[in-house]
Amino acid sequence: MDLQYGLELVGTFVFAISGALAVREREHDLFGAGFTGFITAIGGGTLRDILLDSYPLVWIGDVKFLYAILVGILAAFVFPNLLSKLRKTFFLFDTLGIGFFTVLGVEKALSLGVRPEIAAIMGMFSAVMGGVIRDTLTNEIPILFRKEIYASACLAGAVLYVVLNYFDVDRNYNMLISMSLVISIRMISMKYKLSLPRLD
Amino acid sequence: MDLQYGLELVGTFVFAISGALAVREREHDLFGAGFTGFITAIGGGTLRDILLDSYPLVWIGDVKFLYAILVGILAAFVFPNLLSKLRKTFFLFDTLGIGFFTVLGVEKALSLGVRPEIAAIMGMFSAVMGGVIRDTLTNEIPILFRKEIYASACLAGAVLYVVLNYFDVDRNYNMLISMSLVISIRMISMKYKLSLPRLD
Amino acid sequence: MDLQYGLELVGTFVFAISGALAVREREHDLFGAGFTGFITAIGGGTLRDILLDSYPLVWIGDVKFLYAILVGILAAFVFPNLLSKLRKTFFLFDTLGIGFFTVLGVEKALSLGVRPEIAAIMGMFSAVMGGVIRDTLTNEIPILFRKEIYASACLAGAVLYVVLNYFDVDRNYNMLISMSLVISIRMISMKYKLSLPRLD
Repeated sequence: MDLQYGLELVGTFVFAISGALAVREREHDLFGAGFTGFITAIGGGTLRDILLDSYPLVWIGDVKFLYAILVGILAAFVFPNLLSKLRKTFFLFDTLGIGFFTVLGVEKALSLGVRPEIAAIMGMFSAVMGGVIRDTLTNEIPILFRKEIYASACLAGAVLYVVLNYFDVDRNYNMLISMSLVISIRMISMKYKLSLPRLD
Repeated sequence: MDLQYGLELVGTFVFAISGALAVREREHDLFGAGFTGFITAIGGGTLRDILLDSYPLVWIGDVKFLYAILVGILAAFVFPNLLSKLRKTFFLFDTLGIGFFTVLGVEKALSLGVRPEIAAIMGMFSAVMGGVIRDTLTNEIPILFRKEIYASACLAGAVLYVVLNYFDVDRNYNMLISMSLVISIRMISMKYKLSLPRLD
Repeated sequence: MDLQYGLELVGTFVFAISGALAVREREHDLFGAGFTGFITAIGGGTLRDILLDSYPLVWIGDVKFLYAILVGILAAFVFPNLLSKLRKTFFLFDTLGIGFFTVLGVEKALSLGVRPEIAAIMGMFSAVMGGVIRDTLTNEIPILFRKEIYASACLAGAVLYVVLNYFDVDRNYNMLISMSLVISIRMISMKYKLSLPRLD
């Protein structure tokens, strides 16, 4: 449990950094960058918990998440060049992050008693909606609609988790396998520039 | 009641198709199209229920709605050309859909005990906000702000419903009359290219 | 209390006018302008209350707010030129409005028992998120991301309020001092075209 809690804090921290850095090439001031980092970090989990009526929201009930976000934003302010050079490292972090948040979102939804189909959607939402809200606010085309395989990797991992959970696979194995699926799909599709077919 | 429930499922199905088809001319892949269909189908009712604190959300509490959406998205994937040719038919479906969802949204809000003014707004939200969220995510100008009369037709029908309800008009007649108003305003304004005056 | 309630109604009224007028140069019809006024007036408080699970929402529980909004929208329709000439007056009203809503949002959040850090964020959200949602719907760059100091002034005032509240400063003095900080930062930054540094 401690490990999971720690990972969740680290994931929130990484999302805040990537959100704040996402606005670097644009006209945003420090405040706008910080706000964007904040929204990116909390958006997905917040939407999931509002849809499931699960209160208090994680970052409102546990102030450590707020501080993880603030530290992430400050890091983006103080070391922007260093962090930008770590872009590849961040791609790795972001990929680990969406894998982890997908599984975490599925588990939370299941623990609230919803059906597995809904839990799978909630897992995907947890991982990607922070980025979608960020892109919508900043007038970007949401990451969901870009060429890369992103949200569909999360949905695949989320579906795998509920299927393995249905067959009583051990939770730790299940987390590991489902996260690995998200991460593998994402990495392979980036490496070979794979994308899903279009509707035409 | 069975008829109403069936109509609600069919309306959700039709909204999912029209949402998924809405992205055809754009760069979206199959996943993006499916996601857009999903948001279009659930957005209005979800916003209404969050504003009114009515949980569980319809599509979370009753999995049939999720399957109606999935079948709609699959239909859009498998028969895109056929369905596009049916655009006129879809305009009809969409118009029937917003008429129906308007009245349904008003009734749900009234049943939760809010004032009629609020119920009228909730009826309009139920019908149009799915499309508004869809357009916002895909960087389109929301349908609300385009030239055609759309949301205002829904608001007119919603207001009529609460007025007739106040005068104790029989519910079935009221549904029929109010839906007819939405549908008539929408159809007449499309046929004669009517629009509301602008503010200048 | 009566004064506070009256100010809140007036603030809602002013936000509705500024929202409806914001669409004047665009292709929106009267309905779109009214809708935009409505969203601008309720958006910030609604988001705050959904995040804090505080129901019923203010404008749903107390119909006077709805009428304040409707009167504001009507005023924007009937006297658009007069009101546009009053743009400087409106800048003043808007600035008073964000100062007041910031403090009010902090107080409401504190009264719901959240930590002061969260309350400060909620104060800022109350003041600015109506405008952010309005700008997102109308495909504008959100006011948050423009050059002017806007949301950061609200955050500064909100933080000051929770700090002074921690040191048991009298509530009326605290309101006055914190509102004055928001208003001063905003006015000085507009007059001297100050902006926060960018992240690069």
